[in-house]
Amino acid sequence: MAQLSPSRRVRRTPFSDGVEAAGVKAYTVYNRMLLPTVFASPVEDYHHLKQAVQVWDVSCERQVQVKGPDALRLIQLLTPRDLSKLAPNRCLYIPVTDQGGGMLNDPVLIQAGPDTFWISIADSDLLMWVNAIAGCNDFNVQVTEPDVSPLGVQGPRADDLMAQVFGDRVRDLKFFGCDRFAFDGFDFLIARSGYSKQGGFEIYVEGSERGMPLWNTLFEAGKPLDVRAGGPNLMERIEGGLLSYGNDMTSANSPLECGLGKYVSASQLGSCFGGRALREEIEAGSKRMIRAIEIDGGEVPGCDRAWPLRAGGAAVGQVTSAAWSPDFATNVAIGMVDAGHWGAGSELEVETPQGARQARVRDGFWN
Amino acid sequence: MAQLSPSRRVRRTPFSDGVEAAGVKAYTVYNRMLLPTVFASPVEDYHHLKQAVQVWDVSCERQVQVKGPDALRLIQLLTPRDLSKLAPNRCLYIPVTDQGGGMLNDPVLIQAGPDTFWISIADSDLLMWVNAIAGCNDFNVQVTEPDVSPLGVQGPRADDLMAQVFGDRVRDLKFFGCDRFAFDGFDFLIARSGYSKQGGFEIYVEGSERGMPLWNTLFEAGKPLDVRAGGPNLMERIEGGLLSYGNDMTSANSPLECGLGKYVSASQLGSCFGGRALREEIEAGSKRMIRAIEIDGGEVPGCDRAWPLRAGGAAVGQVTSAAWSPDFATNVAIGMVDAGHWGAGSELEVETPQGARQARVRDGFWN
Repeated sequence: MAQLSPSRRVRRTPFSDGVEAAGVKAYTVYNRMLLPTVFASPVEDYHHLKQAVQVWDVSCERQVQVKGPDALRLIQLLTPRDLSKLAPNRCLYIPVTDQGGGMLNDPVLIQAGPDTFWISIADSDLLMWVNAIAGCNDFNVQVTEPDVSPLGVQGPRADDLMAQVFGDRVRDLKFFGCDRFAFDGFDFLIARSGYSKQGGFEIYVEGSERGMPLWNTLFEAGKPLDVRAGGPNLMERIEGGLLSYGNDMTSANSPLECGLGKYVSASQLGSCFGGRALREEIEAGSKRMIRAIEIDGGEVPGCDRAWPLRAGGAAVGQVTSAAWSPDFATNVAIGMVDAGHWGAGSELEVETPQGARQARVRDGFWN
Repeated sequence: MAQLSPSRRVRRTPFSDGVEAAGVKAYTVYNRMLLPTVFASPVEDYHHLKQAVQVWDVSCERQVQVKGPDALRLIQLLTPRDLSKLAPNRCLYIPVTDQGGGMLNDPVLIQAGPDTFWISIADSDLLMWVNAIAGCNDFNVQVTEPDVSPLGVQGPRADDLMAQVFGDRVRDLKFFGCDRFAFDGFDFLIARSGYSKQGGFEIYVEGSERGMPLWNTLFEAGKPLDVRAGGPNLMERIEGGLLSYGNDMTSANSPLECGLGKYVSASQLGSCFGGRALREEIEAGSKRMIRAIEIDGGEVPGCDRAWPLRAGGAAVGQVTSAAWSPDFATNVAIGMVDAGHWGAGSELEVETPQGARQARVRDGFWN
């Protein structure tokens, strides 16, 4: 692995001092911000995440704040998902699509105040898209990136740690439920959510100055729970089927291809961006579909580019994330597979930079 | 320095195989793509750039392609610069501004065909901004990111190297002039431009498959010239006053504050995004201005965050790029300085993570 050159352009976070003190070894860059990826080692971090509790600096999940009387009307234009179930205590996962129905981002939408919404984004500058649409349509809204940095608390002991800092009421949050909880004189917005399948929370830290006091308190309170710094873990997220925007899907893919059909509401297809293209795809059937894929043989190399999938010599898709899974003792992968080949058990060949491997489509992920 | 985790999301380029074979030691991530920053060492790369010739993988300068009958009309909305001087053989540097006059990007605009324009972008997803504006206004254009990857040839021997590969006619290109030149059966668009002050070219490589054959030919032809792989060099670019979007300016800055007033045309302020705000700033005067700043003492640490500037204890701006210059034997820096303090010779104090240093505003950069 090469090193990452420091610059202001690759932004630090309110928690970077804590991340460095915890001995971060590697980062990725996400929304032009540092996202810590490795502390002890990928495998040690993986086992620890599944057994204890980790605090994750996911500040890079930036918020696109839409504020004003027309905010919800604007946001409803951005996504094929019907937003009528959004509520102050419930966040929603919303595919965001362009004119052709391609995925621009797959954020979580959260209501932060009466007329204030946060679109908690994956890795693309959705701020530009939303701001341009707001300006061109003369909506009565302000679109900004506020000083809000999510902090993840993930792992089977997450409830115990959070209850110590925010009180037992935090245990009552349901999945994708959210509410405000007091710490140090401020009410933090907290959701039961996060980018692992081990359970946990995301704390939306408003105001950078509140970052390190909260970080330090979580680590102090979590000592008996063996709390450690962590981050999204490639092996664990592939096992769990958590998609990564930019890896497993891009603007070349529709939400239907990404297996997100349940978030595409027929009622919105007449008005949202890309609605016509999505309706045509529903009628004609999708050309490819995202799938869990098992790859035979020993540990695969790092998947830093799409790996072609073949069946009988013909191109039938690509693998976009892959890693050796210690717990399942196989290579776990995510890929897009063409129609006719995406059924469970479909035998494929995957072309890795270290040669071809046998692979097959599974009926689901590893959880 | 920490390491950079590999993933498909941080995209490889058509030249990545060559970059790795040349022994790249560090990258930054720019437009969600790998940008090589260090080969031998920052200082050795710096001296070599000033003496010989380097080939730079600057694929991360992605192109926003705007194609169609309304293309130029759309692009003129994006920038306060009057585009009437754009021509097939001349590229233009264009500040791109939002509704409030803030900088969204500082790309180079180039005409690639009769109705086809490339906006060669700095580090922000301008594609989303342009695509949304195109869609909302019903312009007859297609907005895409084509398979075009710029390759830089920089340094005092750049003309000699380029003439060997593309013929002597390439020597006649004027600064920011561009034309097509044949290699291996294809006419490459080439501009005399680039992100150094040592002279050179950028080759807009259309089609990833043409990347490595051209890379290999440049290295083979350049052997007698001591050609090496390189990349934008922090020390050299600060000496030369080359601004970096995301470092030295963000959407919080107007083009006037960035010293780009000569690219703000009065004739466009009635129609372009942010025109009203820019007119008000012209009338009222700018509140801050970008400046060359000299920092006393030994080598400063890496500037991975904004460093506050003070005068008599009061906050008067920030340093956003800084490095030790071997040739000028001082710390060279770029920063935004408030009105009343930006005059040449103005004495300031800069707060680095390793303590305060004396600093002063210069009358210009180091070239």
